Amino acid sequence: MNRPLHVAIAGATGAVGVEMLKTLERRNFPVASLKLLASARSAGKKMKFRGEELVIEEMTEASFKGVDVALFSAGAGVSKQFRQAVVDAGAVMVDNSSAFRLEDDVPLVVPEVNPEDVKWHKGVIANPNCTTIIMLVAVAPLHRAFGLKRLVASTYQSASGAGAKGMLELLAQTKALLAEAKDMDELAERYRDVLARIDPPKAFGDPIAFNVFPHIDVFQPNGYTKEEMKMVNESRKMLHDPSLRISCTSVRVPSLSSRPRRA
Amino acid sequence: MNRPLHVAIAGATGAVGVEMLKTLERRNFPVASLKLLASARSAGKKMKFRGEELVIEEMTEASFKGVDVALFSAGAGVSKQFRQAVVDAGAVMVDNSSAFRLEDDVPLVVPEVNPEDVKWHKGVIANPNCTTIIMLVAVAPLHRAFGLKRLVASTYQSASGAGAKGMLELLAQTKALLAEAKDMDELAERYRDVLARIDPPKAFGDPIAFNVFPHIDVFQPNGYTKEEMKMVNESRKMLHDPSLRISCTSVRVPSLSSRPRRA
Repeated sequence: MNRPLHVAIAGATGAVGVEMLKTLERRNFPVASLKLLASARSAGKKMKFRGEELVIEEMTEASFKGVDVALFSAGAGVSKQFRQAVVDAGAVMVDNSSAFRLEDDVPLVVPEVNPEDVKWHKGVIANPNCTTIIMLVAVAPLHRAFGLKRLVASTYQSASGAGAKGMLELLAQTKALLAEAKDMDELAERYRDVLARIDPPKAFGDPIAFNVFPHIDVFQPNGYTKEEMKMVNESRKMLHDPSLRISCTSVRVPSLSSRPRRA
Repeated sequence: MNRPLHVAIAGATGAVGVEMLKTLERRNFPVASLKLLASARSAGKKMKFRGEELVIEEMTEASFKGVDVALFSAGAGVSKQFRQAVVDAGAVMVDNSSAFRLEDDVPLVVPEVNPEDVKWHKGVIANPNCTTIIMLVAVAPLHRAFGLKRLVASTYQSASGAGAKGMLELLAQTKALLAEAKDMDELAERYRDVLARIDPPKAFGDPIAFNVFPHIDVFQPNGYTKEEMKMVNESRKMLHDPSLRISCTSVRVPSLSSRPRRA
């Protein structure tokens, strides 16, 4: 894989898309050409890559002609919509969404954990949920060396896990609260009132400013959230151990991402 | 214990002392008299109890004459300093600090968990760390019914766990950051610079605004923090099971206390 690749980023304007672009740049990834794809709303805008201005194109089924690798981070719906077009174009879709992670013919890969699984891909390689990645990088070597009996995981997930809108929501709520309260007692006392008067939350179902809640994504019939079950199911798949015992508690906290960078 | 009691609050002006006073009031605790004790700095100030203004007195060894129950929340050092005076006065010290929790002749009690242990007190009854209390109220009935094999606990501890100064620090840091950054990217970029220009932190060794850190109290030789080992040792004592396997991860989060009230 030494020849430079024709790369597309699908969802280039999102919080993750921006990081994909910056990572290609920072790591001197051998890029022969870079195509920035997004919805019609963003088409025509420009983003810089290696000092050059690239124009964002609207993603269509024709976008993937000549592309070797398409990095997708535009939501599960978009990944499903364009999967066939990517495969038909002979490109490999590397998908950051949850769309295909548990499909039997899609490898779920973290390079530090199970790089060998990329070999059996059929046009789509998925990467796991953020919390699964972080946990398995630490835990997979222990599993290989000793074998895991059971995993108990608790997460502390920043507002940015919900993308740019999550960070905006944390900022807007915090600003509103500080503008109206001179100390923490007053802030606590007026918390619900102040938040009721600003834009209703879009990213989170609960207030995020100065709050934590064990509720990321929707609850499943078994009482765990979808976010928690991702860690269970994705870890079992990646460690090739379908009966591994895992319990996860996923909690949203009002923090920045652990390594913030300027977009 | 139906006769009204002569009660003292040692550390009446602290965040916990204030809550003690309000709890006595809210629960109609049978108080024959209430003495508010604090350091010389607070002596002469006034606090309201049941509509009456009480003058705060400087705590001395003579303060406990005629007192039945002395509720202490003024730090471990103060509890140690006045223990003998309280016992000599024939009062019972109910101590919120960590000073005596693991002493063999001091019962460590949560009423919902091990009320029977108050019976063997010798003048001092301790109550456990906040996280131990919350966990054991849920877990003790399971232990009684089935027996625990192992406990894995992760905490999400608000800034108020460090008292009033913890809340002030969270507020001050958050205000400074929002004053200088228009969005989350800028805030992240300038985080260290902004915090370096305001008062250095007193409550926490790490920045608390928009941050989480797995570091509450000092690290012990075994790699756990003192806060984490409190949960281990206090739970073993209260459940009368010195070999119970417990692992705890204590994390500070930039939240309010779970049920904020006005002081």
